[in-house]
Amino acid sequence: MRFTIKREEFLKGLSTASRAIASNIALAVLANLKIELDENGLFITGSNSDLTIKTLVPYKSDDVEVIRNYKEGGVLIQAKVLTEAVRKMESEEVTLDVIDSTIATLSDNRSNYRLNCIRVEEYPDIDLEANGTEVILSKSDFDALVSQTAFAASVKDQRPILTAIHLAAGDGLLAQPGMLVAVASDASRVAYKQIRVPEEVKFVANVPAKFMVEVNRLAEGCETLNVSFGDKKALFAVGRSIIATRLIAGDYPKVESVLKQATSYRLEINASELLKSIDRVTILSEERQNPVTMIINDDYVEITARSSKVGTATERIDVFKYEGENITRVFNSEFVAGALKALNAEDVTFDFPADERRAFIIRNVSDDSTIQVVSAMRSA
Amino acid sequence: MRFTIKREEFLKGLSTASRAIASNIALAVLANLKIELDENGLFITGSNSDLTIKTLVPYKSDDVEVIRNYKEGGVLIQAKVLTEAVRKMESEEVTLDVIDSTIATLSDNRSNYRLNCIRVEEYPDIDLEANGTEVILSKSDFDALVSQTAFAASVKDQRPILTAIHLAAGDGLLAQPGMLVAVASDASRVAYKQIRVPEEVKFVANVPAKFMVEVNRLAEGCETLNVSFGDKKALFAVGRSIIATRLIAGDYPKVESVLKQATSYRLEINASELLKSIDRVTILSEERQNPVTMIINDDYVEITARSSKVGTATERIDVFKYEGENITRVFNSEFVAGALKALNAEDVTFDFPADERRAFIIRNVSDDSTIQVVSAMRSA
Repeated sequence: MRFTIKREEFLKGLSTASRAIASNIALAVLANLKIELDENGLFITGSNSDLTIKTLVPYKSDDVEVIRNYKEGGVLIQAKVLTEAVRKMESEEVTLDVIDSTIATLSDNRSNYRLNCIRVEEYPDIDLEANGTEVILSKSDFDALVSQTAFAASVKDQRPILTAIHLAAGDGLLAQPGMLVAVASDASRVAYKQIRVPEEVKFVANVPAKFMVEVNRLAEGCETLNVSFGDKKALFAVGRSIIATRLIAGDYPKVESVLKQATSYRLEINASELLKSIDRVTILSEERQNPVTMIINDDYVEITARSSKVGTATERIDVFKYEGENITRVFNSEFVAGALKALNAEDVTFDFPADERRAFIIRNVSDDSTIQVVSAMRSA
Repeated sequence: MRFTIKREEFLKGLSTASRAIASNIALAVLANLKIELDENGLFITGSNSDLTIKTLVPYKSDDVEVIRNYKEGGVLIQAKVLTEAVRKMESEEVTLDVIDSTIATLSDNRSNYRLNCIRVEEYPDIDLEANGTEVILSKSDFDALVSQTAFAASVKDQRPILTAIHLAAGDGLLAQPGMLVAVASDASRVAYKQIRVPEEVKFVANVPAKFMVEVNRLAEGCETLNVSFGDKKALFAVGRSIIATRLIAGDYPKVESVLKQATSYRLEINASELLKSIDRVTILSEERQNPVTMIINDDYVEITARSSKVGTATERIDVFKYEGENITRVFNSEFVAGALKALNAEDVTFDFPADERRAFIIRNVSDDSTIQVVSAMRSA
């Protein structure tokens, strides 16, 4: 294999595929990128076995020649060194030439790298065929699904299912025909988002939240994503890249009860004012769980945090609507702040159950497609 | 004590003084800022006992009232919480009110902090009187002294004297009348810079390099620094702040011999081309010491790095001047790159001793006030 290629296009492909390569590499061969040139162009594949990204650099882009003077073939080359070298080179074009099965050269008129390489056959077989339920999502819908839920997923591996975003369309858990729902939870909070999809779309899939975030990032600048949900993997076709992620096995916890629980008191308040107040009092919240106390009555909403060492911070908000008794609720300020940021709303409602120990529900006043649930702590 | 103060001015003062407070606080009381209001204005002091910063917020700035409705006095308040609270508050003015010797309130029309505080008498005595040799340095001279040498100082504590920038004026080590020299070295390289000062200025001081960097940063936007070098401390008056740092005791190693050694071969080369080549080959330099080999002959300068696992990188530069035999030198690429960056030159000279094991000297072709010395490694 050999080719001369526009450096910027090569670098874009290498960087995209490299995003799949983890810092702790389980299988030594996966430290390499798979570089293959065939009649369609240059395919670059990176994988950490749970996440695989395969991207295409075509021979021509906008009628400009990108790859020339080529001979088809394939090779594996260490991802980090190859990407860094192409990033730091300065010419408009670079040439990759596989000398034999162990040495490839990368060069321009100034720099010359002789890189150890591996035969392309050594790369593990990775199935990138779509064989599940297919659906086309707009980038804006996909972005909403991810950015309004992923933050609430667990980052600990103790209960792997909670590191997923639960996606369901059609019937089944939380889903209705014509709706795709995304749910994430770390057992202390739940984030829920729904979007419209065609009625015939039906599937359930638990996709690792961190990979959903990665796909959303790779989709920047694209209009749509073609998604396929199979039994064991999800595939995302985004621009010139295909991204495959394994699914997390097991049943997702039943979160309907907490999403649909009965509530007694409703507060309506400006989201950014509340967020800034919570942010300020949290300076004094000394424990890991950032406990903050909210007192609501007819005259004000008061937020307080206390540190035995440092002191007390109190904020009052006078502009709000409230129906109900005077109540006090204690919560993890980080959870409420996360929910408020995800709702991205001007005004939000808080629906509180009468029992101070039960979780409460936060919604965007002008958009009911998103629901955030945050657990309450017992007040001191 | 109480005062109402323009929030931005208060924040600037708090942030400046807080820069002296280390993350690992040796003496508990030094986690606090000392806040004192007298007839001159508001003094804010922060210290980690090795470095102290005292800054003034005056009653008026550019004829605009900054502090009003005040009562003189002093108090100690936890630096981090106070600074964060003032940073996050939103009003134009905030009010600090010391209720008694244990509680102060910080408030605006929205937020209210009750902060534990400590009597001002509990703060350690810190001598900020100038009692040494005084000299006025321009910011640009000071910046050159620091930025062209500090990077070469040791960051390890095994030989504390090597963590200093050695400053000397008048006679003594390396110094001549009318010259102030700065030297830093980690025993593998030496950075040397000299600037002009009045003939009568004479002193020797070893100032911790990291504090010199901090002073240089705090002097951003100032025209001059008033510096005083005493026996045990250096004082820097910068704008409305005074910065005191302890000196490092002991004699600085004799570096004259390496600075003034005889050399046999001279290479003249474009600094940025060389720097970029070194940067690129270093991708393949696998060891901690980043060994890079430079071959110089009549036709080219060739730079090579080798990784047994990954491969070899080679760069050739054709435009250069060289007088001497064909030579090969091995060096730590990070050290040469650091020296080239510090020299900030278009073209540089390398002066090599005939012995390949001896350190070589790098200079800016058009500025002989800076000298960089880098040790050579034995070639394989």
